[in-house]
Amino acid sequence: MNAHNWTQTLRVDSGFRLADVDPNAKPGYSDGKSDGTRDLATGLEKLNELQERLFAQSRAEVAKDAVLLVLQAMDSAGKGGIVRHVVGSVDPQGVELAAFKAPTEEERAHDFLWRIEKRLPAAGFIGVFDRSHYEDVLIGRVRELAPPAEIERRYEAINEFEARVVASGTRIVKVMLHISPDEQKSRLMERLERPDKHWKYNPGDVDERLLWPEYMQAYQTMFDRTSTAAAPWHVIPANAKWYARLAVQELLLAALEDINPQWPLANFDVEAEKKRLKHS
Amino acid sequence: MNAHNWTQTLRVDSGFRLADVDPNAKPGYSDGKSDGTRDLATGLEKLNELQERLFAQSRAEVAKDAVLLVLQAMDSAGKGGIVRHVVGSVDPQGVELAAFKAPTEEERAHDFLWRIEKRLPAAGFIGVFDRSHYEDVLIGRVRELAPPAEIERRYEAINEFEARVVASGTRIVKVMLHISPDEQKSRLMERLERPDKHWKYNPGDVDERLLWPEYMQAYQTMFDRTSTAAAPWHVIPANAKWYARLAVQELLLAALEDINPQWPLANFDVEAEKKRLKHS
Repeated sequence: MNAHNWTQTLRVDSGFRLADVDPNAKPGYSDGKSDGTRDLATGLEKLNELQERLFAQSRAEVAKDAVLLVLQAMDSAGKGGIVRHVVGSVDPQGVELAAFKAPTEEERAHDFLWRIEKRLPAAGFIGVFDRSHYEDVLIGRVRELAPPAEIERRYEAINEFEARVVASGTRIVKVMLHISPDEQKSRLMERLERPDKHWKYNPGDVDERLLWPEYMQAYQTMFDRTSTAAAPWHVIPANAKWYARLAVQELLLAALEDINPQWPLANFDVEAEKKRLKHS
Repeated sequence: MNAHNWTQTLRVDSGFRLADVDPNAKPGYSDGKSDGTRDLATGLEKLNELQERLFAQSRAEVAKDAVLLVLQAMDSAGKGGIVRHVVGSVDPQGVELAAFKAPTEEERAHDFLWRIEKRLPAAGFIGVFDRSHYEDVLIGRVRELAPPAEIERRYEAINEFEARVVASGTRIVKVMLHISPDEQKSRLMERLERPDKHWKYNPGDVDERLLWPEYMQAYQTMFDRTSTAAAPWHVIPANAKWYARLAVQELLLAALEDINPQWPLANFDVEAEKKRLKHS
């Protein structure tokens, strides 16, 4: 399987229709689960080395680039699993994770991008947004948490914001994990059936679930308005967790290979330091 | 091997002398490296489950407890490896990692504990301090970065600060990784010999190395003054990386077992939710 190229098929381009995406599909990937698991393990090694090189640049104070993974999805689609099994496989020292909940009073007193800006990854880091500024045009739109004109304003504000972030050296990898309503029902039911999973369940999940068509419409509009050349969206069918993890890993690999981080050159005299160390 | 009890031997009690600790020793642990590696893998599973239970409490908003691992050591002693291989094995969503560098101008304009307080882990989380407020009585003392009276003031300030943190529900696990000067020389030399490790080398490391006896004295004073019943120090011989990792893991396990986190009870009617979900 030719790495990375296959994730191109997940990209949201003009004419994209979310309703046409089958959450059970594995677009671009012809192999099955056992091959997928093997490719995931192989990819983790590559991801580890690339991430270490990127992080090394930050330590050497020569880093200019960063990666920002933005994860959006309906409840139980597998964001947590991505954080744990894909991002969690690299050195935590080089990862900056931000889980955005409902905004606090202080956050609501600022523009919706205020809290987002503060959590952008520093150069040399991989940042992960578990939910993001896109909540402000998803639940914000579906639940009418802001006037329609404000929701409208946000799409362009997001595009300008992200264009600046990309221009500053950060690759933004935007991912929507797409599950089917039936798959969600079965995952939520499992949470209800197992006492050790009750903490993952929130009655509000069903409230949002009842608005599934409205959410899909809000996602479609979000894709139409904010899948830009600088920061395109990717919709990943996520009924099969292994496929979703593999696809996110491939997208991260592609971003890191685009950066192509090199081991930083020593900014000291290596031979002189060897002598100094030897006699210390 | 009886889990956890053996780490008691690493605890700094009155009369402790750092000079008596052999960095090659494996106190309390009679098995060798292959058994150690096996015990590490077994421990990781336990650590994962306990961490998930603790994190679940935070999600259910019933968490009262947290764990704070404080790592101090001379350069190259293996702090990074602990973060990566021990802490890095649990779900990153439940970990709050803080690497403290030389304080910024803004930080220096505040009391030395100001920046520390801000990075304390929230209830339900495992916090890790890669270096900490103890730098202010280590390099602070050795390099005379503050007047002697200020350094003196800090020991008691630390004890009062930590007593409050412990009283609020946070188990503080304080660890000094103890390597020998020869082992450090060999690790630093490896960094100089490998271009892909140059980024880990800093000429300042040798500057501090030349003050080894002064540092050991500053550590001894730190142990004498800040190894309290509420937050005792542990000195872990760290020439053998596997032993150091195993020991830190055991200390974290002991802290989590002391908390004994239970899966939170559902704060909703499980049967009613099943029905509601079924018909959604």
